[in-house]
Amino acid sequence: MATIKDIANRLGISVSTVSKGLNGANDISEELRQIVLDTAVEMGYTTKRMKKDANKKLCVFIENMDFEQPDQFGYEIILGFKQAAYRDNWDVTILPVTPAFQQTERYDTYMLKNGFSGAFLVGFALQDAWMLQLASTNIPTVLFDNYIKQNLNVCYIGTDNFEGIDLAVDYAYSLGHKRIAFLNGSPNSMVSDQRLQAFISSMKAHALMLDKDLIAQGHYVADSAKYHVPKFLAAGATAILCGNDLLAYGTIEECRLHGLCVPEDISVIGFDDLPSSCTTIPPLTTIRQDRIELGKSGYYTLVSLLHHVSISRTLLRPQLIIRESTSPTINKKIIKKITKKESTIL
Amino acid sequence: MATIKDIANRLGISVSTVSKGLNGANDISEELRQIVLDTAVEMGYTTKRMKKDANKKLCVFIENMDFEQPDQFGYEIILGFKQAAYRDNWDVTILPVTPAFQQTERYDTYMLKNGFSGAFLVGFALQDAWMLQLASTNIPTVLFDNYIKQNLNVCYIGTDNFEGIDLAVDYAYSLGHKRIAFLNGSPNSMVSDQRLQAFISSMKAHALMLDKDLIAQGHYVADSAKYHVPKFLAAGATAILCGNDLLAYGTIEECRLHGLCVPEDISVIGFDDLPSSCTTIPPLTTIRQDRIELGKSGYYTLVSLLHHVSISRTLLRPQLIIRESTSPTINKKIIKKITKKESTIL
Repeated sequence: MATIKDIANRLGISVSTVSKGLNGANDISEELRQIVLDTAVEMGYTTKRMKKDANKKLCVFIENMDFEQPDQFGYEIILGFKQAAYRDNWDVTILPVTPAFQQTERYDTYMLKNGFSGAFLVGFALQDAWMLQLASTNIPTVLFDNYIKQNLNVCYIGTDNFEGIDLAVDYAYSLGHKRIAFLNGSPNSMVSDQRLQAFISSMKAHALMLDKDLIAQGHYVADSAKYHVPKFLAAGATAILCGNDLLAYGTIEECRLHGLCVPEDISVIGFDDLPSSCTTIPPLTTIRQDRIELGKSGYYTLVSLLHHVSISRTLLRPQLIIRESTSPTINKKIIKKITKKESTIL
Repeated sequence: MATIKDIANRLGISVSTVSKGLNGANDISEELRQIVLDTAVEMGYTTKRMKKDANKKLCVFIENMDFEQPDQFGYEIILGFKQAAYRDNWDVTILPVTPAFQQTERYDTYMLKNGFSGAFLVGFALQDAWMLQLASTNIPTVLFDNYIKQNLNVCYIGTDNFEGIDLAVDYAYSLGHKRIAFLNGSPNSMVSDQRLQAFISSMKAHALMLDKDLIAQGHYVADSAKYHVPKFLAAGATAILCGNDLLAYGTIEECRLHGLCVPEDISVIGFDDLPSSCTTIPPLTTIRQDRIELGKSGYYTLVSLLHHVSISRTLLRPQLIIRESTSPTINKKIIKKITKKESTIL
């Protein structure tokens, strides 16, 4: 377990300042105190003073998503939720679940039996047993990236996919791209549906032609790219927008296998901004989902539900992160012209 | 100004219990304490103890919306915001503004000069000077029923219009209605656009035919109904869904002028659930926007922005309120059959 000294070293402040932050002293700023507390939560540091009220318990259920390592998609979502909840003295249990586990007991029964006041469900599939039960649950429940109709106790939080895809199309357009392909992720997913609709409406808003040969549905894994990218290249795509970063990694690789350079010959844009996306070759231009903020919003939204404020959905702003997997189409023309000129001279 | 005794009388509890609630005593429940505080805020009661920190100031700007009286749309939105903000010791200023006022000073300048940390903007029009400036404001700002693209400091909150309209169509459908008309409110409004899209997609989802003679765009006032309802009646509408309750009041009146009884001959559904909608003749079936919750969510969302959690939108659940302006179509057929039978017998 981390010590006070570890926290002090990480933040570059004195042990006594860390101690003040942990103990709620008045002579350090509120902002610094929050940073100390957030870091303590992140590093797994606990003291008696940080122990939670026995009767204030929340649960995060997680399925189909890796979260143990800092470079995995779920890690910061869980961390953000815990950081925000600990400030309000909630005890938070993280519980990975399987479809089989959901068959053992009804959701409401499990929650009541274990004394949880509310839950945050991350990574569930629409056909999961517990998801089906959420249509009528009485337990305040926040879903990451899933929506349940009409139940006042359930809320959907996520990133605004419409704004995210529009940011990507808008950026590609600003670079001169007109033949923009979209490699979507897994079917039967609300998020995939939203991103596809967003792509269609953003292309229309930019007066760009929609071409069915430039739209494909794969799965949210790198390997999926090889089944669809060749078709995009044959159809003259100059930019490929991907449903997540893993698909973008696969797309860059697939372009390379076809003898194309990213971004000189073709631009690639991801979605998520995984930690590894700044170290790919080339570093990936992508749409960032701020996972710490998603986790915190999951908590704040759950607090609203606990106060009987029935939020239907809370969507966060995505951000365009410009790196090196994208370049203007105009450059290529200039290069070609220059090359032509040079060869003429030669 | 209200006294402690007024609060006690309103809540039907003793003066000493009110006093305990106001002074944060430990021997009353947290729930009762909140009710006492909320009522004190509503009745305008203040004590020194309730005075706010001088440096914690928020502002609610309101335009194009009545809010002074309890039966007006804006009243509870403002009240909910204040109730939630006062719990966290914020001082809240309510400021009605005009387009002319917005020309006197830039939004950011006004906010900084007056020491406001953030604001909640209610009832603004998209073409207002301050709305245009919000694309690049640095001030945490929550908009009621308006959306600004891509600025991390601005958030949209409102009721989920898609779910609201779907609830109304779904209910009319469950009563046997197939010729459902939609009388929308003012054009150039994001909310009107959303409700129209929602109507189209909900009709499609229910496999009901869309007929251009059953869709019209008026304004959010009762008087607007007379220009559109006759067309709906001529086109065989059996139910009319309205963009707000005022339009529904006008629609009921217009049907009456055409010799039709609501709900026996035609069903009418509103949107908002204004306080007066339970005393109309007949009492109005409508889609409820919980305005206290909207106000509270406006505050909670603003807190998130102040904590640099960039929420794009927060939408609340609407609720279907079934009263007496709607009835099953099947009844009419039965009544007609019975009448026919009776007349045959006679």
